[in-house]
Amino acid sequence: MSDDRGGEEALVRAIRALTDAAGSAAGVQVGIGDDCAVLTPRPGLSLLATTDLLLEDVHFRRRWAEPADIGWKSLAVNLSDIAAMGGRPRWALVALACPEGTSADEVEAFYEGALSLARSHDVTIVGGDTSASPAGWLVNVTVLGEVVAPRLRSTARAGDAIAVTGALGRSAAGLAVLERPTAPAGVEAALLAEVTGAHLRPRPRVPEGEWLGAAGGVTAMMDVSDGLGIDLPRLLRESGLGADVDVDRLPVDEATRAVAAALDADPRAWVTGGGEDYELLLTCEPGALGRLQRGLAEACGTCLTVVGEVTATPLRWSSGGRQMTVARGFEHFAARPAGGASG
Amino acid sequence: MSDDRGGEEALVRAIRALTDAAGSAAGVQVGIGDDCAVLTPRPGLSLLATTDLLLEDVHFRRRWAEPADIGWKSLAVNLSDIAAMGGRPRWALVALACPEGTSADEVEAFYEGALSLARSHDVTIVGGDTSASPAGWLVNVTVLGEVVAPRLRSTARAGDAIAVTGALGRSAAGLAVLERPTAPAGVEAALLAEVTGAHLRPRPRVPEGEWLGAAGGVTAMMDVSDGLGIDLPRLLRESGLGADVDVDRLPVDEATRAVAAALDADPRAWVTGGGEDYELLLTCEPGALGRLQRGLAEACGTCLTVVGEVTATPLRWSSGGRQMTVARGFEHFAARPAGGASG
Repeated sequence: MSDDRGGEEALVRAIRALTDAAGSAAGVQVGIGDDCAVLTPRPGLSLLATTDLLLEDVHFRRRWAEPADIGWKSLAVNLSDIAAMGGRPRWALVALACPEGTSADEVEAFYEGALSLARSHDVTIVGGDTSASPAGWLVNVTVLGEVVAPRLRSTARAGDAIAVTGALGRSAAGLAVLERPTAPAGVEAALLAEVTGAHLRPRPRVPEGEWLGAAGGVTAMMDVSDGLGIDLPRLLRESGLGADVDVDRLPVDEATRAVAAALDADPRAWVTGGGEDYELLLTCEPGALGRLQRGLAEACGTCLTVVGEVTATPLRWSSGGRQMTVARGFEHFAARPAGGASG
Repeated sequence: MSDDRGGEEALVRAIRALTDAAGSAAGVQVGIGDDCAVLTPRPGLSLLATTDLLLEDVHFRRRWAEPADIGWKSLAVNLSDIAAMGGRPRWALVALACPEGTSADEVEAFYEGALSLARSHDVTIVGGDTSASPAGWLVNVTVLGEVVAPRLRSTARAGDAIAVTGALGRSAAGLAVLERPTAPAGVEAALLAEVTGAHLRPRPRVPEGEWLGAAGGVTAMMDVSDGLGIDLPRLLRESGLGADVDVDRLPVDEATRAVAAALDADPRAWVTGGGEDYELLLTCEPGALGRLQRGLAEACGTCLTVVGEVTATPLRWSSGGRQMTVARGFEHFAARPAGGASG
């Protein structure tokens, strides 16, 4: 597989073309190309389905990720895909392969990690597969959910506001800390724990996604898994539109700023180029914005920050009114992911 | 993970206990422990879900498995799980990771292999995930299907006949040929192609499963994926029963016998201990047997062979009236699988 992102995107398009060539299928409302597939086994019933692979030394390192963290995160990234469509996750299938010599305690800890997140979202683990692995831990999780009216990537409109939940760059800040031999000096332990926690145990925006999906006025939605610099262009491409984004408005929290200062790093590179924040990126009618911001804060205690506007012209990032280029996306440390065909 | 099968079964039980401890969940008719999970998103609608990991040098070797074979087989093993419940497969999610340097052509060939089987069963590939792999090809496929009345493992009754579709040991014979540096002498090419084809591109018993599930009289069903010596005890344990099995009645075809003779191997070890045949193993009312055999032959052109009887006493294998022990299950060549938590 090519290791440049252009090649990866091309591959996903090729796979999509191959599978689309099978013709539009009964019971498939949305196939490859969004956060989840949308299936309609019966008129009036829409099911969401999404799957993600997580591999040792691509998506995590055993040096700093405990089995329980791996279990948690493997489920979290899939719940985030369900949230991105405005759905409610219901069931998960968890497949795990680990090397010879892995103890039963470690395997149980992995499942406990996944279960603790599953329980908090009323999700049931209904099946899976276990295998010996010749090379490191690897996990595949599939989550199924229900949705009334799925929020897609392809339905943004020119003039819509672009907004994100929470703050960006936290996970990349956490990874920068975890990858160092020692903790950066001069940063409060609580702030360090916040960013490393954001990387190891991300909290998928499930209640936020369900609330936003039902609130009205949200025209398109996805989750930010590979970084805004990759994910926003995906949404815009699906919608056939562009955007103006003000980089100065991208939300960065105190912990991320403190870690960036201590490491002499540019937090903006983490914000657009860091991945795995699992925040929601949405477009909405400008007139609905205030209602959505107040409603989301009240329902979930979560901020919704406007960062730009959808346009009919190509995507433009700017700071202080001047156009700029941004870091394009999270680069995994050992090998780059090829991008989700779905998710 | 422990590499002995006792440890693996214990692990699956531990995982099941962990996930069961979450309490019986709404919308889950059958969780971990059968070929598929059975979900009921709406009263009257039962969905099947199953997932399987396939790893290079555990489940296949790149030396003899082409990308298209890997794609085909990854889907086939999951379709077989749907067939085992008497269901109809509808949708698949296909996640693939392959090493840096894998060409786009190889990746496309993989998807073409999966698609050619999907099309023949009217299954749509609706999503997936692609990633770079630090170590070999790895694939995870999840299949969703529909079912009216799922055939379970846990519902066999004492006095039922035990029967299998097709013939056993073919896949193990094929693997024995593929693992050799040269083809065994004195076996017709067509017979060699039959057993290697059975290993590389198994044909899941989808129409057979659907027919048997609807025919009436089938009390329990599963697919034979790890070998009868492992899979029959699983069915019996779920049903809380034993069996008498006549090893001399286990169906072996001409190709398998010819390869065994050429390699001076005991075909019975492949029949009970070889895995990956993806035949259906069922129990049925003795009075329904003739009708099921004639009906299946007429509907699908497939034989159904009686091999024993369910009893209230422990499982007993015999040959010529004498009790014997049998090879217990397929041993993967590099590392043993840990058994499916579901499937």
